[in-house]
Amino acid sequence: MLYSWLLGLVKKWQHMVLRLNLMTLELSHLDVSSASAKHKGWINEPFMMVEKDGKLYGRGTSDGKGPSLGWLHAIEAYQNTKTDLPVNLKFIYVGTEKSDKWHFEHLLKKKKMFLEDVTYICVSDSTWLDVNKPSIPYGMRGFCFFHIEISCAKKDLHSGHHGGSVLDPISDLMYLLNRLVDLEGNIIIPGAYDDVEPVTPEEEKMYENIDYDVIKFQEAIGCQKLKFNDKAKFLMSRWRFPCLSIHGVEGTNSKDGFKTILPKKVIGKFSIHLVPNQEPEKISKLVIDYLDKLWIMRRSPNTYKAYLVNCGKPWISSIHNENYKAAWRATKHAYDVEPDMIRDGRSIPVTALLQELTSKNVVMLPLGAGDDDSDTENEKIDVQNLICGTKLMAAYLYEIAQ
Amino acid sequence: MLYSWLLGLVKKWQHMVLRLNLMTLELSHLDVSSASAKHKGWINEPFMMVEKDGKLYGRGTSDGKGPSLGWLHAIEAYQNTKTDLPVNLKFIYVGTEKSDKWHFEHLLKKKKMFLEDVTYICVSDSTWLDVNKPSIPYGMRGFCFFHIEISCAKKDLHSGHHGGSVLDPISDLMYLLNRLVDLEGNIIIPGAYDDVEPVTPEEEKMYENIDYDVIKFQEAIGCQKLKFNDKAKFLMSRWRFPCLSIHGVEGTNSKDGFKTILPKKVIGKFSIHLVPNQEPEKISKLVIDYLDKLWIMRRSPNTYKAYLVNCGKPWISSIHNENYKAAWRATKHAYDVEPDMIRDGRSIPVTALLQELTSKNVVMLPLGAGDDDSDTENEKIDVQNLICGTKLMAAYLYEIAQ
Repeated sequence: MLYSWLLGLVKKWQHMVLRLNLMTLELSHLDVSSASAKHKGWINEPFMMVEKDGKLYGRGTSDGKGPSLGWLHAIEAYQNTKTDLPVNLKFIYVGTEKSDKWHFEHLLKKKKMFLEDVTYICVSDSTWLDVNKPSIPYGMRGFCFFHIEISCAKKDLHSGHHGGSVLDPISDLMYLLNRLVDLEGNIIIPGAYDDVEPVTPEEEKMYENIDYDVIKFQEAIGCQKLKFNDKAKFLMSRWRFPCLSIHGVEGTNSKDGFKTILPKKVIGKFSIHLVPNQEPEKISKLVIDYLDKLWIMRRSPNTYKAYLVNCGKPWISSIHNENYKAAWRATKHAYDVEPDMIRDGRSIPVTALLQELTSKNVVMLPLGAGDDDSDTENEKIDVQNLICGTKLMAAYLYEIAQ
Repeated sequence: MLYSWLLGLVKKWQHMVLRLNLMTLELSHLDVSSASAKHKGWINEPFMMVEKDGKLYGRGTSDGKGPSLGWLHAIEAYQNTKTDLPVNLKFIYVGTEKSDKWHFEHLLKKKKMFLEDVTYICVSDSTWLDVNKPSIPYGMRGFCFFHIEISCAKKDLHSGHHGGSVLDPISDLMYLLNRLVDLEGNIIIPGAYDDVEPVTPEEEKMYENIDYDVIKFQEAIGCQKLKFNDKAKFLMSRWRFPCLSIHGVEGTNSKDGFKTILPKKVIGKFSIHLVPNQEPEKISKLVIDYLDKLWIMRRSPNTYKAYLVNCGKPWISSIHNENYKAAWRATKHAYDVEPDMIRDGRSIPVTALLQELTSKNVVMLPLGAGDDDSDTENEKIDVQNLICGTKLMAAYLYEIAQ
């Protein structure tokens, strides 16, 4: 239904505003992360939205569907007030943001023509840093996601029956996974920080000026101790420096209970979040070479393979561009507060790709607050943010035309 | 239905043979490991038995239900030939062997009276060592199953969003799990081998005489390299020495795909298989103390807890007892071959408990072959083994009375 409505609107608009020699591209996504009511923690069935205490709970309310609707409401507002749209518009509504980024990126490269007349690009994704104060991200981390596969047999074994006679693959995996970061969480793969740009004094000052309460964040996630309590250092650790996270092990006893499996094959999963100037290809090679060397040192008789599963480039934009100035003015207009210029530790690789393909400035315009929990349970968007966000979008279209 | 049939038979027998001052106790189990047709590998629906190439495929055919039926058929054979049973019988059919050993053991201790007049005990469980040659186990390993729980927050985090600012619990877990065994799989927890009895020359000779093809085993499980190719060393590594196996990690991304979770809490699972003279309580204390010390060295801000989840004592029996001699003669009678006297690396803690509670000899009398895969997919029992196994049981009842 959303699609047919969208199609109807697009048909109405397509010949409306071509008078200005200015074309903006708005990108948003309609697909969402997986969610299940059985997943403990959800207060509602994730795909049946409920309103509670001024918040709309449901999968996609903040990450994708809410902002996607925001654009349509903003344009409807122009129509309902019989005001001409101030700029020409193109839309991309991605349907595979959460599943298959690679195919979409391939399509974008193939249909590059579509982007040729675009002057400014706006991506509606990410969230504010904080809960109450709007912010505009100008950079995001990229990522490299790796698998390490180790196998010892062609069928699962039993640790009582076979344990002691076979060198189990999970010990090999622990050996490798334990050699990725040091006790402080710093990556110990040689060269992993080589391309990270040094922090400038100007940048340091910018971080210090950001409105953020580290203690409040710590309390919200219920963490005993953060790596840094200093605000600038804390924010830089999330945005400005790469990090390595181990996500899990596939093929083992990962459920309740005490099944004494000795698995035939295990897959270790980890990723490195990259920062601007780091190239996924280069980092991937460093990591695989390092693991290959460790594997030789390990002298295990088992079968081993380490490989890159997926990756995305980091992205950084110039906040001195007219696009950012327009976004800044629009935010101030909608919320009556000066937004913080921030980065985001997550990855939305399409931003870097759009920038690369068009050589135009890309601005990120989030609608959701920092506590929207867009990828975990109880995703929500504040009703107020949906309303002010629509205003923000309408105001951005006005400001970018100035 | 099986239960009512069983009850009928038991009622028929209960006053039959009390003329001999000899009471045997037969123990078997009716419950089975979990199995699902969705679990790749099964050639049939696991709970719909099928016959193929002289084998009966289905969950429980070899591990529990097949041997349980064997006893009933053996007794029926005596009845049908109008022969008096040569000994008095008591049966225990366990229903919680795969799930809740502790409650059954508690019940057994409480109902110790039931065991008071028992002279010999026979447990029908385990399998032969080999595929074609029968064997009689006289020892099994015990086990200690441990959990290590580490948590960093009260909700799951996202590695892009939060990675770098939080010390993730899975790195802590890898640090600990990587410090349990050395490159050769030897346990490096101080004192772990202290109570293991030295191998005697007589024992060594016994191992050398066992009929077993290590290369064939290696090919059957599709393993590139075993820890030992020497038969005696290989068998000892499975039966005679403790081993430590890591089973998996709970709470992480353990499924397909590349979800970049930074889990709030992870649970590492591992077990140590114990050998005679090792006490679960002592080993458990050694392990927990060792982990606690490592944790202090780790200096992590996260929350940690290591604990014993379940345990069972190792078991060893005297093969010079009349019980074993009867089992040996019965096996020779049923299969026309001299059985190997073996051990089993797995754990059936009730054997040690029965021995402890009664001070009587416990013999293990397996029906299944070494390739029955009783805890994994495609569990089967050879039709021939079910028939000869019934003969073996009938013969055992005769031989034990001599």
